[in-house]
Amino acid sequence: MKKIQHLVLVSLVIGLIVSCTPSVNVKPDDVSTPIQTKDPLPSWNEGESKSNVLAYVTDVTDKNSPNFIPISDRIATFDNDGTLWSEQPFYFQLFFAIDRVKAMASEHPEWKDTQPFKAVLDNDMESLAKQGEHGLIQLVMTTHSGSTQKEFETEVKEWIATAKHPSKNVGYDKLVYQPMLELLDYLRANNFKTYIVSGGGVDFMRAFVSEIYGIPSEQIIGTRMKTEFDYNNGNPVIKRLPAIDFVDDKEGKPLNIQKIIGKKPVFAGGNSDGDLQMMQWTASNTHKSFMLYVHHTDSVREWAYDRDSHIGRFDKGLDQAIQDGWTLVDMKNDWKVVYPPR
Amino acid sequence: MKKIQHLVLVSLVIGLIVSCTPSVNVKPDDVSTPIQTKDPLPSWNEGESKSNVLAYVTDVTDKNSPNFIPISDRIATFDNDGTLWSEQPFYFQLFFAIDRVKAMASEHPEWKDTQPFKAVLDNDMESLAKQGEHGLIQLVMTTHSGSTQKEFETEVKEWIATAKHPSKNVGYDKLVYQPMLELLDYLRANNFKTYIVSGGGVDFMRAFVSEIYGIPSEQIIGTRMKTEFDYNNGNPVIKRLPAIDFVDDKEGKPLNIQKIIGKKPVFAGGNSDGDLQMMQWTASNTHKSFMLYVHHTDSVREWAYDRDSHIGRFDKGLDQAIQDGWTLVDMKNDWKVVYPPR
Repeated sequence: MKKIQHLVLVSLVIGLIVSCTPSVNVKPDDVSTPIQTKDPLPSWNEGESKSNVLAYVTDVTDKNSPNFIPISDRIATFDNDGTLWSEQPFYFQLFFAIDRVKAMASEHPEWKDTQPFKAVLDNDMESLAKQGEHGLIQLVMTTHSGSTQKEFETEVKEWIATAKHPSKNVGYDKLVYQPMLELLDYLRANNFKTYIVSGGGVDFMRAFVSEIYGIPSEQIIGTRMKTEFDYNNGNPVIKRLPAIDFVDDKEGKPLNIQKIIGKKPVFAGGNSDGDLQMMQWTASNTHKSFMLYVHHTDSVREWAYDRDSHIGRFDKGLDQAIQDGWTLVDMKNDWKVVYPPR
Repeated sequence: MKKIQHLVLVSLVIGLIVSCTPSVNVKPDDVSTPIQTKDPLPSWNEGESKSNVLAYVTDVTDKNSPNFIPISDRIATFDNDGTLWSEQPFYFQLFFAIDRVKAMASEHPEWKDTQPFKAVLDNDMESLAKQGEHGLIQLVMTTHSGSTQKEFETEVKEWIATAKHPSKNVGYDKLVYQPMLELLDYLRANNFKTYIVSGGGVDFMRAFVSEIYGIPSEQIIGTRMKTEFDYNNGNPVIKRLPAIDFVDDKEGKPLNIQKIIGKKPVFAGGNSDGDLQMMQWTASNTHKSFMLYVHHTDSVREWAYDRDSHIGRFDKGLDQAIQDGWTLVDMKNDWKVVYPPR
């Protein structure tokens, strides 16, 4: 837990610094290449990544292939932050926490003089960073607990409908990766059951990603808060408590996959060292499996980062992907577009 | 946890007493009534329980009804022990624990002189009961942890293929309720997604119930052990630790439903007070919902017990079912057969 808290803090500090630098102009995505209706992955350039995916799916869905996988075992698990949508300058869920403090401030006049809330309300990022781990945890716990599940869902829905990314200046839900949406569709068209398995909050995701990704809430797995059932005189509610129940990151990913799905994935997508154990677990499937790592190589259309990044660090995972011949998606060269056309 | 441990102990003691009484002769199920192919619930006698179910499903799947429920919200959750299969003289999973001790004894010569194992090996149920809570926990932890997920699955599969119920003298998997199998089928035919939400061990159930109930492992929710991921030099395994991760009973049921499914059920089936919170949660759905309680009224074909039973106690749940007009299945009168014909 300590590690996670530390990571979150580091992310926040880095994020604050980055978000204070001049924003990069967003170039319109290249949509000049005509999209062929018969190509299941039209936003992917021809190349090894695309052909690997197509060859794998064709092989394991062919009843005459020795690698055929029964439909019930076609489990595909995807990380979210940095794999299905962007995660810079820091995880979008932290922007939510900051915006929530501002939205809740009128009910908490004492926050004007109380850290870490004062720093957030003053937009004083330097002071906020000085609040350290304790301050950040206070921020997250205050904004992610104390409400019922239903209330929290409403808060996230309202936020996603109005908040804008600080440099891209669009809603966060517009920063999903078009090529990955096509990959999810393609897998589902071939009877794979697609799951999200993310370090992000499960209820944060469930509030809005189902429609975007075509993944129902029961196929979204993430970090959870502890909760409490209250019969409430016949109007039962589930209350969110200020404590983390399970961190769905690193070894937590295969553990949660086993606990909740009970089957080993045959296809896994990720982008960081936090996904490595899920990849290793998938690679050990007795069925032929597919490990896909998104490599952030596009500093113009998205962001470029890997081994030294404090968000989405991709170091040990990159080594093993190269060593074991997993598919490394070169975002700059493999993707015709990054975000969906607007 | 204390409460659960106590309950388990009480169950064991009661179970041991009951299992030492002469076994009731199993009368062959009444299969004289011809089964009509067009009736989705052929093993149910005509009556209020059956007509309630049929009327509900017809109503909520009718697009022109004000009570229509979209397919994505048709979540049906069922308890297992006492709802989908028998649970007397005590939970079948406890028979597994006892049988495992016997199977493992050759690797543990020290058990011949060590309680609680000695009592199990001597078939000395009186001594076993004297070992108390601590002894029982030792028994469960020893037989349900220390192995990998894969090894545990194999152990359960081997047990279910060979073990026989002490009084019914058939495999435990033959003691599922035929009318409930038909209900599960009927709901699925109407695009309900059927789940098991049981106090029993999730991995114990997953090892064999999918085929019987037609429910895949990812729709089985139960009590979980803590686990650990071990990369194991490229042959990763998940190890079962001797500690309980989550008890899926009472308020744990709606909490787990929210954590794992993220949607409130519209249909819930149970048989005891351990299911009451799941029923209450389901009853609070804004969609029209259905609460079905199986009432064990058949002392000849199955067992008769409710308010005073230490296994599957049905007291507060019975009160609320009567008060709120939930459907109470009278096993003796509502079911033509209890178990599948052999």
